[in-house]
Amino acid sequence: MTVEVLPSWIGGGWVAGQANGTLVRDAVTGRTVTHVSSDGLDLGAAVGYAKGAGGAALRELTFHERAAVLKAAALALDARKQELYDLSARAGATRRDAKVDVDGGIGTAFVYSSIGRKGLPDGRVIVEGPQEQLGKAGTFAGQHVLTTPRGLALQINAFNFPVWGMLEKLAPALLAGVPTIVKPATQTAYVAQHAVRILDDAGVLPEGALQLVCGQLRGVLDLLDGQDHVAFTGSAATAARLRADAAVTTRSVRFNAEADSLNCSVLGPDAAPGTPEFDLFVDALLTEMTVKAGQKCTAIRRAFVPAERIDEVTEAVASRLASVVVGAPGAEGVAMGALVGTEQREDVRAAAARLRAAGRLAFGDLEKVDVVGADAVTGAFLSPLLVRCDDADRPEPHEVEAFGPVSTLLPYSGTERLLALIARGEGSLAGSVVSRDPEFVRDVVLGAASHHGRLLVLDRDNADESTGHGIPMPQLVHGGPGRAGGGQEEGGLRAVHLHLQRTAVQAGPATLNALLGGQPQQS
Amino acid sequence: MTVEVLPSWIGGGWVAGQANGTLVRDAVTGRTVTHVSSDGLDLGAAVGYAKGAGGAALRELTFHERAAVLKAAALALDARKQELYDLSARAGATRRDAKVDVDGGIGTAFVYSSIGRKGLPDGRVIVEGPQEQLGKAGTFAGQHVLTTPRGLALQINAFNFPVWGMLEKLAPALLAGVPTIVKPATQTAYVAQHAVRILDDAGVLPEGALQLVCGQLRGVLDLLDGQDHVAFTGSAATAARLRADAAVTTRSVRFNAEADSLNCSVLGPDAAPGTPEFDLFVDALLTEMTVKAGQKCTAIRRAFVPAERIDEVTEAVASRLASVVVGAPGAEGVAMGALVGTEQREDVRAAAARLRAAGRLAFGDLEKVDVVGADAVTGAFLSPLLVRCDDADRPEPHEVEAFGPVSTLLPYSGTERLLALIARGEGSLAGSVVSRDPEFVRDVVLGAASHHGRLLVLDRDNADESTGHGIPMPQLVHGGPGRAGGGQEEGGLRAVHLHLQRTAVQAGPATLNALLGGQPQQS
Repeated sequence: MTVEVLPSWIGGGWVAGQANGTLVRDAVTGRTVTHVSSDGLDLGAAVGYAKGAGGAALRELTFHERAAVLKAAALALDARKQELYDLSARAGATRRDAKVDVDGGIGTAFVYSSIGRKGLPDGRVIVEGPQEQLGKAGTFAGQHVLTTPRGLALQINAFNFPVWGMLEKLAPALLAGVPTIVKPATQTAYVAQHAVRILDDAGVLPEGALQLVCGQLRGVLDLLDGQDHVAFTGSAATAARLRADAAVTTRSVRFNAEADSLNCSVLGPDAAPGTPEFDLFVDALLTEMTVKAGQKCTAIRRAFVPAERIDEVTEAVASRLASVVVGAPGAEGVAMGALVGTEQREDVRAAAARLRAAGRLAFGDLEKVDVVGADAVTGAFLSPLLVRCDDADRPEPHEVEAFGPVSTLLPYSGTERLLALIARGEGSLAGSVVSRDPEFVRDVVLGAASHHGRLLVLDRDNADESTGHGIPMPQLVHGGPGRAGGGQEEGGLRAVHLHLQRTAVQAGPATLNALLGGQPQQS
Repeated sequence: MTVEVLPSWIGGGWVAGQANGTLVRDAVTGRTVTHVSSDGLDLGAAVGYAKGAGGAALRELTFHERAAVLKAAALALDARKQELYDLSARAGATRRDAKVDVDGGIGTAFVYSSIGRKGLPDGRVIVEGPQEQLGKAGTFAGQHVLTTPRGLALQINAFNFPVWGMLEKLAPALLAGVPTIVKPATQTAYVAQHAVRILDDAGVLPEGALQLVCGQLRGVLDLLDGQDHVAFTGSAATAARLRADAAVTTRSVRFNAEADSLNCSVLGPDAAPGTPEFDLFVDALLTEMTVKAGQKCTAIRRAFVPAERIDEVTEAVASRLASVVVGAPGAEGVAMGALVGTEQREDVRAAAARLRAAGRLAFGDLEKVDVVGADAVTGAFLSPLLVRCDDADRPEPHEVEAFGPVSTLLPYSGTERLLALIARGEGSLAGSVVSRDPEFVRDVVLGAASHHGRLLVLDRDNADESTGHGIPMPQLVHGGPGRAGGGQEEGGLRAVHLHLQRTAVQAGPATLNALLGGQPQQS
């Protein structure tokens, strides 16, 4: 019996791999969704198609024209997003989860389209910074320019955000004029694939600007060089393997990694029970534990609270968790869906068991969960798990990541001690401090900035408009040092710039003006 | 018999390695200069001293105070630069060569001091870009800041620029508040070491801000993590080895590589014999072949000339090379000194033989050279070697680098063909186009920018003030894609920023202002 294999979109057409490939099951029902395989696909031709047809077509367009393409792509996806929500439910995502992924991704594409139109010239070269006079008589000067490399962007995405993860990488590459090959994570490749199919149906992308490889990237790295860009989101182990490839080490492929990290949230000493900040902290922790069933690289893994408040916080969070209904997306009252699959559940259980050994479980059960509208064993369901670790010096909370609905409460006393504990995470994507004490906020933000890509200060005055601990914004950098991969995505035009080659051009000022004439100065 | 071992400067004191180490000979006379070894040195303590005392002392200073430290360092070196010239002569450097290294390095330090004073706030945090409003009511916003990581900068330098190479890396690290450990190349470690001794004598650096390890870096990488920065200049093979280390692949140490490349210079079709541009092209090629005996990572390796001009160019360059006197630095009439050592000479000869096999030798002799004031065999002397390769499709000129006084002349016909040939170098630090034809200049600059970190347009109007093909400027980026290592140094404040951690801080606008108050906006 032959099985249905999820087609890839390469060379301008849809082609399915030849082997049976990896079976992907519905996270809720356990039924087969599809099989994923790239066996037999001519990936070398896909690379050639991107660098040839794709690069030529994109480099022909100005930044503004590329921004218009991006807007058309976002509109096409927006018009059919219900289809993406429905597919996402098969991966365990509630409507709220799917909106974070689908609407978040489409919104990011819209923001990048706007940034491209407003922040970039209607040309093909970015003139960066001032002309630097290099001689006293003024006959010789230097000017930095950013131009489009002659390569492609290989984007390797994580399973948790099949749409957002793809679009937040695609948008800056497209604006930069760099053709993209997307490799979605196997578990949710069918969601990413459907988004690409919508784009194909809409016919909005230039030829070769986007291709999709479902399955292994056999040999693709061997074809890349210093003109190419690899952007990876996923596990630290895979990041390390990719980064050790000769493509990166000897041919200087540009490599950007974003890996999961042990993000913290801090309750300020001023935020006593009864204050809005106390409630905001508890709310945020609940949100981060349950949205996407905690499968977010930015989710709060370490919740630091003043030692004298840990009982009250534990009780408040546990009592809120008790009312979270777990079950099939769309079923009555369900607030938290399934993990992406039962293998993922086993990984999370194993990690949670290690965390529990460092303290005790203050809420939840590793093996048991009440589920609405589905079977708790066949479906990849897991109870939210709140670990309380009174000995904050234990290594586990700072080293073990349970990539699911799992957080650890840790006590601290004093800002210096807190900063030392935060640093033990060895670099994070996101952190937050919930406090209204200006001095404490200042000490934590400036003291922890070196270990973070993003830091949120949350209080009663900004809570209504705050975008939350776990949500990266296209205007702001996403990425973090050390354990978080050391990379940087988004951040507005910064991500576009990272796809371009910076070159210092030296010449007489008149020659520079003639060469780059008509280009508005970009600072 | 025990030998003199070159001391390292670690932990605030001068300590010599315990083994005999690597013998370093005078490039001109072949006599022993010193031995280099780090055996027995406590490098773990050096790392701890940098991260502890060094980091604390530097982070205490504001950017302006660090700029003042840098200026004091530059002044101290400037006052004793004759000593550095004298030592450089033992490495084969003429006075002209030594000035490129010593004066170039001191000048870079002065420029960075000025950039730091004028371009950075008198504080410890850089506020980058505008505040981004993230909600309609204006109660929530984002702001990027750059702060000093809690790590060190490990700077691994090449033999050819012991002073400049050290200072162009030290200056931005120092401004960023990051303590430095320098590892000079063994062959010229005694020159770098003397520069550090001058700085120690002057007592201008904060405790732990700079250490020097002469010899192997045994185990140092194992101690580094995502807060640390490794900056490397040297061979592609060593760059690849460092980049594959777990420090980089798994702990996300920031890594910047600058490797030698097959830089090109292009003579425009308009630049007929008799035009100033023709002469400028020949002059530049002569300079790049002979300064530092061609041991420059930016030197012209591929000289592209219109096919119909190749005879005239060959003749002009060869006749100029014939009058270059090779010999001991300081000896009568000497224009070109020695290579750094006889091993280096063997490497260059082997590479030049491969290039010759792709064409013919238009000037010079691989085995023989007339030398003034020294012995041509004991000293590491080599004739300038001009290769002419009429078949520009041969792979050797685009792949083989002879890191000495060696360049290859290659014919081209048409701009498109020229750009394809340039791209075969797979990424370069520097390129130049000598032409006054605006259309040709535009096509070459915009067509080759993707493969270059720096491009010089040279013509009669800017020649008097031009800083030349081979000279990186502190205001402009130095580095290049692909074969050139994919890194970026200098470029004014860009190099300081690369040493800092970028963090997006989200909060209410009033909180952001209070937190970052008094910081002028940096764009």
